[in-house]
Amino acid sequence: MGKHYCAEIISVGTELLLGSTINTDAADVSRYLSELGINVYYHTVVGDNPERLAAAVLLARGRADIIITTGGLGPTCDDLTKQTLASSFGRRLIFHEELAESMRRYFREVIGAGEMTENNLQQAFLPEGCEIFHNEWGTAPGCAFEEGGVHVLMLPGPPRECNAMFKSCALPYLRRLSDETIFSHTLHIVGVGESAIEAKLRELMNSLSNPTLAPYAKEGEVMLRVTAKAGSVAEAEELLEPVTRQVREILGDVVYGMDVPSLEKAVFDLLLEKKMTLCTAESCTGGLIAKRMTDISGASAVFLGGAVTYSNESKTAILGVPRQLIEEKGAVSEEVAREMAIGARRVFGAELALSTTGLAGPEGDGRNPVGTVFVALATEDGVLVRRLQRAVGRGRVRLLAANAALDMARRFAQIIDKR
Amino acid sequence: MGKHYCAEIISVGTELLLGSTINTDAADVSRYLSELGINVYYHTVVGDNPERLAAAVLLARGRADIIITTGGLGPTCDDLTKQTLASSFGRRLIFHEELAESMRRYFREVIGAGEMTENNLQQAFLPEGCEIFHNEWGTAPGCAFEEGGVHVLMLPGPPRECNAMFKSCALPYLRRLSDETIFSHTLHIVGVGESAIEAKLRELMNSLSNPTLAPYAKEGEVMLRVTAKAGSVAEAEELLEPVTRQVREILGDVVYGMDVPSLEKAVFDLLLEKKMTLCTAESCTGGLIAKRMTDISGASAVFLGGAVTYSNESKTAILGVPRQLIEEKGAVSEEVAREMAIGARRVFGAELALSTTGLAGPEGDGRNPVGTVFVALATEDGVLVRRLQRAVGRGRVRLLAANAALDMARRFAQIIDKR
Repeated sequence: MGKHYCAEIISVGTELLLGSTINTDAADVSRYLSELGINVYYHTVVGDNPERLAAAVLLARGRADIIITTGGLGPTCDDLTKQTLASSFGRRLIFHEELAESMRRYFREVIGAGEMTENNLQQAFLPEGCEIFHNEWGTAPGCAFEEGGVHVLMLPGPPRECNAMFKSCALPYLRRLSDETIFSHTLHIVGVGESAIEAKLRELMNSLSNPTLAPYAKEGEVMLRVTAKAGSVAEAEELLEPVTRQVREILGDVVYGMDVPSLEKAVFDLLLEKKMTLCTAESCTGGLIAKRMTDISGASAVFLGGAVTYSNESKTAILGVPRQLIEEKGAVSEEVAREMAIGARRVFGAELALSTTGLAGPEGDGRNPVGTVFVALATEDGVLVRRLQRAVGRGRVRLLAANAALDMARRFAQIIDKR
Repeated sequence: MGKHYCAEIISVGTELLLGSTINTDAADVSRYLSELGINVYYHTVVGDNPERLAAAVLLARGRADIIITTGGLGPTCDDLTKQTLASSFGRRLIFHEELAESMRRYFREVIGAGEMTENNLQQAFLPEGCEIFHNEWGTAPGCAFEEGGVHVLMLPGPPRECNAMFKSCALPYLRRLSDETIFSHTLHIVGVGESAIEAKLRELMNSLSNPTLAPYAKEGEVMLRVTAKAGSVAEAEELLEPVTRQVREILGDVVYGMDVPSLEKAVFDLLLEKKMTLCTAESCTGGLIAKRMTDISGASAVFLGGAVTYSNESKTAILGVPRQLIEEKGAVSEEVAREMAIGARRVFGAELALSTTGLAGPEGDGRNPVGTVFVALATEDGVLVRRLQRAVGRGRVRLLAANAALDMARRFAQIIDKR
């Protein structure tokens, strides 16, 4: 197997040193590098200051084979990464008319802002002889070059652009450096905590060396990454297959998918396959489920719409929940969740309707403890209701309630064949 | 004014270099330091490796007056920060029986774990002659000492412990060093890009040295930070006031607030003050506006609810948009946006209704280019409609449409007095 590369990440931006921005780029890039089998020994953060950036680059050159910078590629006079790196490595900056043209087009067609201001042209200068990383998610292009055995890669600072450019440009560049393939699958789990998953899998995890198995938590879900090193993707796949199978056997149906982008996408794909439609009636989640379903492009093939019935009046006016029921049982009750789902299913004419009603907090209702949420699924065959009770803070209560609702739709659709 | 202190933050932990943990400690500590008027020129992250940590400390000694470490103070054999720093500065580690006793008590009374394992005693060793930072939020104490004009402060890695210990121990320690304060305000801007803002403010930015003015972009908005150094908060405020006033005069009403957490919170506060209520009818934003409004705790005082009418049928069934109008003009049209807002206002009984209908992409409708969104605001006095056209990718089209809608509500509420 090949050389062991060692990388250093230099993040540039005074906002990072002021603490107004958290350095997620360094964590994201590190995770990608770790998947590639590239060691990272240092992260360095410097401000928008060419002398201190140059000093950090000089240091990094002496101890890393790969230097990855994030930030400082934009159009403002603070953005000095390219100039500093080019000068550190003795390269001129060259103007690329085709980049300038594509920026003008971006301003005209994408932003619709008419004329681009002059300062944007700074972004069309790149170090001589570099590989251009085109930016389809913003205006600042990135780049890569090699000088004296050190590879320099520059990525933009906005996390969306940094991540997208890493995946589509930096990843292929770095893969070419190594003849070893690292390949991984991610199993996605909902409804069980990380420590419970770890307890169930500890024995298996300890017995493995290649592939490795690592759980991590994100957005109220748990991911399990299974990673193999091999000479080719096919060989890696052969190592991965028995392990993912074994994990699925141990964990059962809390695993909602492998290498899927999100729970909502898993629900969407399943409903599309089963030719079923979905709608929502949300109180405490306030549109979060609808928002997540419509994050998916082409959502309309499955998702017909939703009602955010935050006030009691709207629960009655739009969904037909009897006012008396709300008065008797309270808006946060199994009965109201049930009627909300039934009402939504009728109004939107969908096969499945999800509803949520609960106390995200911090205020309570005098009947239920904060963190109580009722989640219902209305189907042709009847209504299912689940009660959640986890006082984990407003944002997280809403997130877990949305996850629980989407998971109910997934589990139901999995066992049902449309008649 | 006093000496200008310059600090460097060294965060220790292999999990940071693997990207499995995001370095929020460095951001939190930086923010506190910036408030104290202490400059931060570098953040460094190293793994649980004594040689590389010692190298980072040696470097930091040469360029900083204050070195703050986070992490590596715990009981496991990976935790080497104290040993490395003590040895770098030529200090012995001294065992503190009273710390060992308070750890035993913590295990007995707080964790309820009975006997403490032996490895925890490592945490009772601290550099000779240091000031002890007691840890009331966990077991690992921190500490501070001064050697050759360099102040060394060590804080634990878990963000909750790091933050609490900074506030109660490091802050008083550092306040004793300095008689200067840094104070800043952030102006929030919506609807204009970063480069356009910079072009308008370049002259002012270049003419300033204290306060300074720096723009940055985040989530489809632009923030402008105005930062002053002075002997007290009151003096800093005196320096800041004319600059923030001048910026507001130059930029006009695209500035939606100062030091506010979000656009939706600014809208919420304004509507609450004006005693106005809001509802939504969302097609392309799919619940994003409702979700953002209900992120705010106590949202129900302003936000009555919303409809996510993704299908044409639901636009008719719930909002009463005439089917013929949709057929004639298309779902993405000024007319449908207008009728959606009017319908929502009627159904939810709110003073203001926002609607969105558009093509977030990637698919088009054959009538409008991708990125076309109509945003409407229905009020007692009539309906306002704006057309947006920016093909910036699905997620961003939705974000910018939600921002534009919220901004319409803000602008209207600002000029209207409730009758």
